[in-house]
Amino acid sequence: MLPFSRVAIIGMGLIGSSLARAVRQAMPTVRLTVSDGDAAVRARVLALDLADDVTDNAGAAVVDADLVILAVPVGAMGAVAAEIAGELAPGAIVSDVGSVKERVLTDLVAGLPGVIVIPAHPVAGTEKSGPDAGFANLFTDRWCILTPPPGVDDWQVARLGDFWRALGAKVETMEAAHHDRVLAVTSHLPHLIAYSIVGTASDLETVTRSEVIKYSAGGFRDFTRIAASDPVMWRDVFLNNRDAVLETLGRFTEDLVALQRAIRWGEGDTLEALFTRTRAIRRGIIDEGQDTEEPDFGRKH
Amino acid sequence: MLPFSRVAIIGMGLIGSSLARAVRQAMPTVRLTVSDGDAAVRARVLALDLADDVTDNAGAAVVDADLVILAVPVGAMGAVAAEIAGELAPGAIVSDVGSVKERVLTDLVAGLPGVIVIPAHPVAGTEKSGPDAGFANLFTDRWCILTPPPGVDDWQVARLGDFWRALGAKVETMEAAHHDRVLAVTSHLPHLIAYSIVGTASDLETVTRSEVIKYSAGGFRDFTRIAASDPVMWRDVFLNNRDAVLETLGRFTEDLVALQRAIRWGEGDTLEALFTRTRAIRRGIIDEGQDTEEPDFGRKH
Repeated sequence: MLPFSRVAIIGMGLIGSSLARAVRQAMPTVRLTVSDGDAAVRARVLALDLADDVTDNAGAAVVDADLVILAVPVGAMGAVAAEIAGELAPGAIVSDVGSVKERVLTDLVAGLPGVIVIPAHPVAGTEKSGPDAGFANLFTDRWCILTPPPGVDDWQVARLGDFWRALGAKVETMEAAHHDRVLAVTSHLPHLIAYSIVGTASDLETVTRSEVIKYSAGGFRDFTRIAASDPVMWRDVFLNNRDAVLETLGRFTEDLVALQRAIRWGEGDTLEALFTRTRAIRRGIIDEGQDTEEPDFGRKH
Repeated sequence: MLPFSRVAIIGMGLIGSSLARAVRQAMPTVRLTVSDGDAAVRARVLALDLADDVTDNAGAAVVDADLVILAVPVGAMGAVAAEIAGELAPGAIVSDVGSVKERVLTDLVAGLPGVIVIPAHPVAGTEKSGPDAGFANLFTDRWCILTPPPGVDDWQVARLGDFWRALGAKVETMEAAHHDRVLAVTSHLPHLIAYSIVGTASDLETVTRSEVIKYSAGGFRDFTRIAASDPVMWRDVFLNNRDAVLETLGRFTEDLVALQRAIRWGEGDTLEALFTRTRAIRRGIIDEGQDTEEPDFGRKH
């Protein structure tokens, strides 16, 4: 038996539209209603036939749904909660897909009194944006982290977990604050650094942009991929996970300054020891099925 | 007519063995002699049938060669120059594939008086090491940068350029010092940052290594690829391109601190403006054929 029979998705970007495709593929009998505030996005959703109903109004989309998933930037969650608060069916679960959980949990609980709120974060994505960029197996073998507040029934959490497992994901539950510290390391700091280095490289006087582009295969091009991710989504992540990001960034800067010093003083052993140690983490990620073993991410040569 | 008829490659790691395969494929009549100091590597080279002759001695490998390419870590170039100095045939060109050019140029010119030295750097590679990791089309559509010292005949430089073009590369010539500033940005700084963040992530107290690995698909896993590159090769790069790396690192740190401040003070517009600007660089790299347009580097989903 399916965990939910009527699902509403608010926001049809990369993640929302991937979710719509995945639901259609894994649960073809589910009634799927989606909403997006952008007329161009709705037109693409209709053309791609991603849902049973498409509305411009989040409130209208959630009527009758037993699962509502907000797939909007984390800074917009509170506003969407206000739009749907009066329209939710009794017993509906409201969840989301945002990269920050403590702030989202606070906003949703405050905006949806008496509603079952179970925030979630599928750790998956690409650098592309919009409904055309989505695909059904984006979540396959990726982890989806649930961060239920105290007081939510275990069976409701399990039900949402079953939903994500049916879409191919692996499911973990943790506290929202811990989620935000973990993701600060595995996602937010990497994005911040990638954005930063791409900015630095395009602002130099002695090296031209054209040279940066031509010789990017030396390593730089890897960073440009995540630095091409959605600007509004990422702005909101940094504004809403400030403390954990600044804490992790402080640790990173400290370690980087130590490396800087090792280079200045010619401490080859320090460098070689670190460069040897980091290989083990890559090995762990491949062994856990979280990246490909193929050289160069399997890029075509 | 082929630019060279007898080629010697010293060092049979990823780059040396890719070069051997590419030469065999593009110039099957070339007599190819290779050397490596490691018996296990030589055994693999023989088993893979990558060359006509395999020796343990760089001096013996270069006798009669009209092109000698050193594919060893940049810190080892001077020692190899000493080994081959007395064995080179008159008129032989000595080149290399190192990621640092000014120091290599100095070492080779000093160690090989009267010899035609034309340093080169094919901007290509993967995170894998050793003779089994090489492949013939590693250099296809990648740039190879030649950094001839003053006084070398133009036609000799053109001849080495023809060799690299025959292997599928695009060829550019520039001053060694400028090369080192360009690659500090497009290759050395990205590697340093990747090594650093992977080190930081594995040393945290509040987030476990297992969590870092499980949730690495949020962006972190991208960095682990280049942080799995050869430790000795990269140690030597940083020790031998110190000034340009420290200068570029200083610029990066300055920009990162500005971003840190923007996050602390909630300056969303500053963040969004940068995150929007960086997309154009990615676009340029794809348009120039230096990376794939496919989402997520074309990783399988």
